Parts: sequence; C-alpha cells; structure tokens
Amino acid sequence: MIQEFESTLLEGAVTEIARLPGIGRKTALRLALHLLRQDVSASVALGEAIINMRKGIRYCSVCHNISEEEVCPICSNSRRDSSTVCVVESVKDVIIMENTRQFNGLYHVLGGVISPIDGIGPDALEIDSLVERVSRGGIDEVILALSATMEGDTTDYYIYRRLRDLPVKVTQLARGVAVGNEIEYTDEVTLGRSLLNRTLFSDSVNL
Amino acid sequence: MIQEFESTLLEGAVTEIARLPGIGRKTALRLALHLLRQDVSASVALGEAIINMRKGIRYCSVCHNISEEEVCPICSNSRRDSSTVCVVESVKDVIIMENTRQFNGLYHVLGGVISPIDGIGPDALEIDSLVERVSRGGIDEVILALSATMEGDTTDYYIYRRLRDLPVKVTQLARGVAVGNEIEYTDEVTLGRSLLNRTLFSDSVNL
Repeated sequence: MIQEFESTLLEGAVTEIARLPGIGRKTALRLALHLLRQDVSASVALGEAIINMRKGIRYCSVCHNISEEEVCPICSNSRRDSSTVCVVESVKDVIIMENTRQFNGLYHVLGGVISPIDGIGPDALEIDSLVERVSRGGIDEVILALSATMEGDTTDYYIYRRLRDLPVKVTQLARGVAVGNEIEYTDEVTLGRSLLNRTLFSDSVNL
Repeated sequence: MIQEFESTLLEGAVTEIARLPGIGRKTALRLALHLLRQDVSASVALGEAIINMRKGIRYCSVCHNISEEEVCPICSNSRRDSSTVCVVESVKDVIIMENTRQFNGLYHVLGGVISPIDGIGPDALEIDSLVERVSRGGIDEVILALSATMEGDTTDYYIYRRLRDLPVKVTQLARGVAVGNEIEYTDEVTLGRSLLNRTLFSDSVNL
C-alpha cells in the first residue's frame, strides 16, 4: 500500500522498524513520523538504547539467561538457593517467574521446547548443559516450569529421562484450575488433573 | 505487570521502545527479546536507521514536507506543475496522495487542522506561509485535501476566507460514495452530497 517515500532516510528507518515482529510497514511509518515530530534526543535515546542493549547483553554461561556479565546476577547472588534449579523455556519466562516473588532458587533457560514440527530437537536446546550442571552436584531439585502443552510435556519427559539416574528430585509446576477461573469454564482435562492432584486444605496454603 | 529486569540495558531499551505510541511495556519487552535473539547487526541497523533518519530529515522551507535538503524533491522537481498546490494535513497525507499517482502538482503541509478542543488554532498551522506562498504569485489553484471532518471543514473554510481575495482558484476534494462501498451502507450526509454533486457519466471518467 505504501510504496515509496521521497526520503531514503525515512525509507531506511521504516524498512528497519518493519522488520520487527508484528510491525508492518504502515505501523512502521506511523512510528517513524512520530519520531520525526519529537526532538532529536528522543530518537537518539531510542536508537542508542537498542544498540547498547544488544551489544552489552550476552548469555549467562551457567543458566543461559541474559546477562551483562559472564555470570548473571541471579546465578552470582549468594543469597539465592543454588540447590534448586527452575527450568524455563525462555528469558521472558525468567522475568515472569521472578515477578511471582515465590522462587528464590536459580534458573536454567532451555531456549525453547522440543517441537519436531518446527524442527527443534533436544540438541537445539540447552538440555545437555542442564544434565552437565546437575552432574556436577550441589543441585537437589530441578523444577520443570515449561508450558502445559504437548511440546512442553514432551520436553518435560525427555529431561526427566535424562535426569532420572542422577541424585536429583525432578518436579513439575502444579497443573490445575487457574486462580480466578470458574469451574464451569475449566476444561475437562485440567479439571481431571486438579482432582487427582487435590491438595489438603489448610489456612496457610489455600488462601 | 512486568516490574523489573535484572539488566539495566534491557530495562533501558524496553523503556525507550515503550515510549513509542501504541507500544506498551509488554510489547516493548517482546521486541527487545526478539532483537536479543538476532545478530548484533540487526540492532545496530535499526538503531542507526532511527538516529540517521531523525538527524538527517528536516522540513522543506517551501511546503513543510519532510526533506533531506533545504527544499524537498517534490518542490524542486521541475517536471511537476508548480501552479497547483495541494493542501494536506500531514507528511503522511503527502505519501498517500503521491501513491494515488493522480497528482503532479506541489504540496503544502499544514501540520494539522484547526481544532479548538485540542487547543490548535490557525496560528499553530502553516496557514500564514500558505497565504504568503500564494501571494508571491505563480499559483493558479489551491486544492484543499483535508479530512472530511468538522475540523477539516472548519480549516477548509478558514483557508478559503484567507485566500478568496487573491487571484487563485480554491477547490476541494470531491465528497461522495467511496469506491467499492455499497449505497445501502453509505451514510445519508455523504449520499446527499454525492447526489448534489453528481457527475456526467462518460466512458473516460466513470470507469
């Protein structure tokens, strides 16, 4: 629809912005024109923040979370419980788990889940490094916190098989009725599992 | 929802991206994490394109369209008809008009429309410079191509009054049934105007 601009600089910016996922050329043009209406400093701040972020961030050599150092602040925090490792799919999931404020252990970011349809096998993920990390000792529990999808379940089972001969407890996030959801609209599989895995009611846990 | 990140570089990029209109912190995080998964060159290209665009683009001293030179490529193009000036609201509207490939004259970008509610009076727009441009002579027709809204109509009328004593023809874009629209779903005001302003049917025009 938007075919050409008189300015190659505008064209360049729109093309680059439109490479971002979920942003088409129309939105990219809207954003570029917005920046043109703002002070130069706004564009410089945005451009530099993006470049500095990408240049300054690498992956933690222990857990593969993003980090500005060789080892990330979570792994190097001596006040966290290094005997518990929570396995997550992505960097975003680390942020989400941290925001629950319910976990004080360390993480291991897989970089995805096993998905034969998308050509993602176990070798494409940080599973070997997890097994190696557990083999070195000092880890009592590995919590699998992957999506409750077929791919997540497959990956859970694969990791469980790789770890089951090692002296480590492998656990999985509870599956059940989501907090705030009505029973009427909860699917049967979830309801069935939440019934099987029912928990003892007590003041401290069920509030 | 997303409260804090372990990385100040990520935090910085997310904050800057989230300043863009229509992009919240969640989307900004998704975009930042996408960039982190790509090669460094992608982020550098994006960041530099944004900075270079903003630093390199200024406004044409004649028509106020964006330009990389003192005078934009449209105004300085001798093959365009400098006796016809199309008045538009914004830089984006120039692009949209150009994409119709039906106009070979020059433009005049107002920078908005008169809107008392938003505190935009005639002085905030490039109306004086339009009057001055027409006063200098050489312009036979001014085409008003503003939105068919109350604000657009107000601005059309204001400009018409400012120009009516000058030797220039002031015209307005045709208002009528949009091409592709069904009569059944066209509003009464539009239908009424399209009836009043009906055009003679001929092979060359109505196809």
